[in-house]
Amino acid sequence: MAGSTYGKHFQITTWGESHGKGIGVVVDGCPAGLALCENDIQEYLDRRKPGKSKYSTQRQEGDKVEILSGVFEGRTTGTPISLIVFNEDQRSRDYGDIASYYRPGHADYTFDEKYGFRDYRGGGRSSGRETIGRVAGGAIAIKILNELGISLLTYSRAIGPVTIPQTANDLLSAWERHNIYRSLHEIQELILGNPLYMPDKESSKKAREYLDECMKHTDSAGGIVEGIITGVPAGIGEPVFDKLDANLAKAIFSIGAVKGFEIGDGFAAATAKGTENNDNFCINNGQITTATNHAGGILGGISSGAPIIFRAAFKPTPSVASTQQTVNKSGEEISISIHGRHDPIIVPRAVVVVECMAALTLVDLLLENMGAKMEDLKKRYSCT
Amino acid sequence: MAGSTYGKHFQITTWGESHGKGIGVVVDGCPAGLALCENDIQEYLDRRKPGKSKYSTQRQEGDKVEILSGVFEGRTTGTPISLIVFNEDQRSRDYGDIASYYRPGHADYTFDEKYGFRDYRGGGRSSGRETIGRVAGGAIAIKILNELGISLLTYSRAIGPVTIPQTANDLLSAWERHNIYRSLHEIQELILGNPLYMPDKESSKKAREYLDECMKHTDSAGGIVEGIITGVPAGIGEPVFDKLDANLAKAIFSIGAVKGFEIGDGFAAATAKGTENNDNFCINNGQITTATNHAGGILGGISSGAPIIFRAAFKPTPSVASTQQTVNKSGEEISISIHGRHDPIIVPRAVVVVECMAALTLVDLLLENMGAKMEDLKKRYSCT
Amino acid sequence: MAGSTYGKHFQITTWGESHGKGIGVVVDGCPAGLALCENDIQEYLDRRKPGKSKYSTQRQEGDKVEILSGVFEGRTTGTPISLIVFNEDQRSRDYGDIASYYRPGHADYTFDEKYGFRDYRGGGRSSGRETIGRVAGGAIAIKILNELGISLLTYSRAIGPVTIPQTANDLLSAWERHNIYRSLHEIQELILGNPLYMPDKESSKKAREYLDECMKHTDSAGGIVEGIITGVPAGIGEPVFDKLDANLAKAIFSIGAVKGFEIGDGFAAATAKGTENNDNFCINNGQITTATNHAGGILGGISSGAPIIFRAAFKPTPSVASTQQTVNKSGEEISISIHGRHDPIIVPRAVVVVECMAALTLVDLLLENMGAKMEDLKKRYSCT
Amino acid sequence: MAGSTYGKHFQITTWGESHGKGIGVVVDGCPAGLALCENDIQEYLDRRKPGKSKYSTQRQEGDKVEILSGVFEGRTTGTPISLIVFNEDQRSRDYGDIASYYRPGHADYTFDEKYGFRDYRGGGRSSGRETIGRVAGGAIAIKILNELGISLLTYSRAIGPVTIPQTANDLLSAWERHNIYRSLHEIQELILGNPLYMPDKESSKKAREYLDECMKHTDSAGGIVEGIITGVPAGIGEPVFDKLDANLAKAIFSIGAVKGFEIGDGFAAATAKGTENNDNFCINNGQITTATNHAGGILGGISSGAPIIFRAAFKPTPSVASTQQTVNKSGEEISISIHGRHDPIIVPRAVVVVECMAALTLVDLLLENMGAKMEDLKKRYSCT
Repeated sequence: MAGSTYGKHFQITTWGESHGKGIGVVVDGCPAGLALCENDIQEYLDRRKPGKSKYSTQRQEGDKVEILSGVFEGRTTGTPISLIVFNEDQRSRDYGDIASYYRPGHADYTFDEKYGFRDYRGGGRSSGRETIGRVAGGAIAIKILNELGISLLTYSRAIGPVTIPQTANDLLSAWERHNIYRSLHEIQELILGNPLYMPDKESSKKAREYLDECMKHTDSAGGIVEGIITGVPAGIGEPVFDKLDANLAKAIFSIGAVKGFEIGDGFAAATAKGTENNDNFCINNGQITTATNHAGGILGGISSGAPIIFRAAFKPTPSVASTQQTVNKSGEEISISIHGRHDPIIVPRAVVVVECMAALTLVDLLLENMGAKMEDLKKRYSCT
Repeated sequence: MAGSTYGKHFQITTWGESHGKGIGVVVDGCPAGLALCENDIQEYLDRRKPGKSKYSTQRQEGDKVEILSGVFEGRTTGTPISLIVFNEDQRSRDYGDIASYYRPGHADYTFDEKYGFRDYRGGGRSSGRETIGRVAGGAIAIKILNELGISLLTYSRAIGPVTIPQTANDLLSAWERHNIYRSLHEIQELILGNPLYMPDKESSKKAREYLDECMKHTDSAGGIVEGIITGVPAGIGEPVFDKLDANLAKAIFSIGAVKGFEIGDGFAAATAKGTENNDNFCINNGQITTATNHAGGILGGISSGAPIIFRAAFKPTPSVASTQQTVNKSGEEISISIHGRHDPIIVPRAVVVVECMAALTLVDLLLENMGAKMEDLKKRYSCT
Repeated sequence: MAGSTYGKHFQITTWGESHGKGIGVVVDGCPAGLALCENDIQEYLDRRKPGKSKYSTQRQEGDKVEILSGVFEGRTTGTPISLIVFNEDQRSRDYGDIASYYRPGHADYTFDEKYGFRDYRGGGRSSGRETIGRVAGGAIAIKILNELGISLLTYSRAIGPVTIPQTANDLLSAWERHNIYRSLHEIQELILGNPLYMPDKESSKKAREYLDECMKHTDSAGGIVEGIITGVPAGIGEPVFDKLDANLAKAIFSIGAVKGFEIGDGFAAATAKGTENNDNFCINNGQITTATNHAGGILGGISSGAPIIFRAAFKPTPSVASTQQTVNKSGEEISISIHGRHDPIIVPRAVVVVECMAALTLVDLLLENMGAKMEDLKKRYSCT
Repeated sequence: MAGSTYGKHFQITTWGESHGKGIGVVVDGCPAGLALCENDIQEYLDRRKPGKSKYSTQRQEGDKVEILSGVFEGRTTGTPISLIVFNEDQRSRDYGDIASYYRPGHADYTFDEKYGFRDYRGGGRSSGRETIGRVAGGAIAIKILNELGISLLTYSRAIGPVTIPQTANDLLSAWERHNIYRSLHEIQELILGNPLYMPDKESSKKAREYLDECMKHTDSAGGIVEGIITGVPAGIGEPVFDKLDANLAKAIFSIGAVKGFEIGDGFAAATAKGTENNDNFCINNGQITTATNHAGGILGGISSGAPIIFRAAFKPTPSVASTQQTVNKSGEEISISIHGRHDPIIVPRAVVVVECMAALTLVDLLLENMGAKMEDLKKRYSCT
């Protein structure tokens, strides 16, 4: 029933349907004193906004965010921050068709089975527009992380069968060699210049060719989003159920269309041997670190200080104009063809959603870890 | 901090370290009136017990479970069920070495960073013995599911690079053709006859050869566990954060050594096209169903009634006798070699842990869904 | 930090400050299929609206509620219901004074200590306007309860030192004798005709005289709200921490200005003897019931089927125009006098807030109890 | 269903029935590095142990606690602490009677209604023995509070109609004049010398006379427990639902037999005027404080730094040997008389339970508050 809240300390509660009055989120548990304005959030909403290339839906959605509470004189007050985006561009049209049958790959049938009926307009609550609340809340989480010296970078690792050849560790090394390691946000800006958000020109070109081919055949594509987080202090994550990787897995898997998630070497670790997969500890600049990063920065569910690396697999957009077989509410088998302005691929737009869910998870666990040791409490409450 | 509780309704709280007095779990929220005795639970603990083949540690662990509360005259009372397994076979030995350095691939370093120190004996809380609490609680969840006509089956899909050729859907079809579809538990019994729990003889043979080779070189292996759940009613899972797949992802990812998780076609869906990946709805025996099951039984985070199919990737056991480089607590780089009775692969023993975590997740969401519709409340509280 | 969410199943998350853009609530976990429109909610908001008698603030607040999500074609969809009331009548004025010192009896000082600063306009988040979210969410809970045959009635038991002479049980007996027992809502309507919501004419008259006296001396008054809930099935409440009385206590005590809470005979039970306080069981019309109701309808934290009776003590309004001593932010002792449009007593307006918090608690625990027995699950998921 | 866990950060999960194998608690979220041994906990369990005066049951219960996990080399490790007390003195006797009817004032009927049946031996889960888990967990919370300079003191304010004449503020002033203000624990030791734990000799004598009279007539008594907490930093408590007073109310009200709870002046505040009830702020030794403490140390749900003062009303023990009317499971009205070794009053034994529940609440909210401000996070994670 109540499944619209995520997080224990830094908690978001999202609401809203595709064609209702709006979409919003209440962010509760945000520490007081963070400088925050609407532009800080708008920047991230703009990254998920459609219509920026021919590979996303041509719907026009302004998606302007308003802060309704929790910010006073430019700073968060510690009280809940309510954010709203009013819906626009809701064409008045006949939804009779979509109301009467179950689109393959969509949640029409399961919503009907669960609740007895559904708001069928534009997918209702299961629409991709639901992610607006995640991104608005996540933008605040990212701002907090940045103030703590933590950077996130997410991008398209694969578009359909086209995968960039570099590993995340390769990319990090390359950026480090070019002295840009500490500003992942700048790298993000560069990547965002690319319509598919792929950090490799050759792959991006091939991917666009692949998508052009898909669109020609009124078909759609999936892909893989990869994320890197640097600057995370060691010690974050709560054994044994609220491990950093377990919570990331849930957060990312709760995004519609995600079908797989992995940390570090992920599924490839299953075929490696122990001697290959273990990351030896070593001393670097007087600091304990690991010589390699197969683990993706997490050991025993707790951050090790190494970059956190993860990937999410997205299925292809289920809305395709090709003819499909399905069933209507009267229990008859029918043929349908879904028209309208749909994304031929959602991966590029999903990149920022993945980043936001990861940030929300991390802020939540940073707060959870505040009192891990008695000395933390003593320092906080000034007992000597 | 408090990360040892899983579930919202059917809630387990686990405790215990590898070399402490025991390991246990409190199961809270179990419906009253379930027939339950220690043997019901012991059956599952025996499946995770080591020493059953040469591919698992030769430590002898009795792992006898005791029910301390919550059961009266053979039935659950609705009050918390406390289960305990006392630790045995705790060789008195010198842990000085292991206390002073950080084993690669283990949580030694991250526990020290988080808590300031650690119980280093046998891995303490990050030991695989921690899963005893999960299995003991999960056994009760499985019993509930069985009473509701829901069956689970888990097995080794891959051992190192050796993967069974059949998909989960292939296996289901084969079993269905042989009229054994409804008794996955019987199939499980057959698979358990095989020391690696692989449902394919040829693959199992190759996998044993691979493991023999690993052991000869004092190395270790990983693998993939696959799970199938049948009989789940449509409508289970809570949008948008407590989706069935999101909660499964968290539950499975919270098991030590898991590095990847996927549902249905998983990562393969990322390379498919929409027309290939969509499961068309059809009518079968008067029931709405899907012609294929790429989705793995979940749409929009809600069960569709089709079999739920998922996979988890396990990394190779980090404890290997080969020489490794690491760092000690004084910050010196050293060479170590880990001796003792370690599993060359944990995948076969992890199979039941995966099954139990999946069952816990499912019972929790079945309870959550009890009041999804007003008519459910009216029926329950007899208002007409 | 994150303290703005109440409930586990039927969950409200409130947001908003007195002089921000608005006040709102997200209601998550509402069962699908409940008929709901804005008027259903407005009715309850109107009961807490100021300006209806000379005993409440003369501020004009329209407090018109809008449903932003979760309702489709007149029925709840099972997805989060977002409700908003935009703020009006925010006089542009100089808050310099109030910003610089700490009003006695208010949360100015504690908010500053906790968060480092505060939104001082009109009390910010600690304003009584915060209860709008509770009432909007509670109105939905009341609607659910009514559909299940459960009725709530709340009223002023005491205004300052003036207390009605009848006990709640007396009132129930009287109403029963007049055949109006089953429609507590009708009784509520009668009581609401009285400006102080006291169900006794003589007491109401004395109370108004007392308040007139208070106002003449620029002073304020407190009082006691009493609530009665009938029709609650036996079995509601979760031992040992989520008992019905414990959760009611928390819910009611979370309302600003509440300083005491009791169930049944409450503090009077402390002076009674066991033989006086025990409610003997008896058979009435073939049903098990109790001959008396000292317990207030709850035994061992679980509803017994008898009417639930509780009381909450409210302190006098802290904003008084009389001169008071206090301290400013520079640490100087100063004299102040608080002017503005303040309630000389909040008890009558708090009556509906108490009713709503009780309803929220009860719906939450009714949902929690849905799967208390294995047979409940079997019925729900049709296993035979 | 799952109602046996209390706390969000410092979380206890209790289990066990009166006549099962034992009673226990899992304490999760305890900060690492707290010195802890079994004696630290035993001290508090001994305070609730029966048989210490003629005013408590003459049952002999050893109630020896064992630490099963979470402590290594004398310090907490940050992992869950499992505590167990095995049951003894379970006389083998015929419970046939008690199983077949519903004792007035007990939870027999409500447990049967909720769960379909109950463990009737000695009250099962609704027995007072359930509080062992609360006290064992609370003892750890008290140890943490003491390390932070926070002291708790609880005692009997009233036994039946006999009430001590001094207010909590009177007592605090007296102790302060005698220079013993800072060591409430020492005062507790003095009070514990008194069999009824009343901090006033004359009242204690009268109370014993009253109880002697009750016992002569095979009747029982109730009373009021009062608690004082000093040294709490300002800023603790989470608006708007997890207020310090709201959480204390729930914690205390979850103890069996509690029927009322109040903070500061409590119900008396309802009859006061605003000018009487407001606590003026003033400067004392350069610190902001209040001249009076009608509020009991909490404003807007947040601690103000002043002593926290609260009271709980306990009903008289329901088990009395006098003849009572009730109903059996066959629906027949019968007469019963309850024999056995019952407490004629539970208030003195409940004193430590109240103290423990208050301590658990406070530690939980101290942890919750750790990241209230951005600067707290920056300090903790060393960002400059």
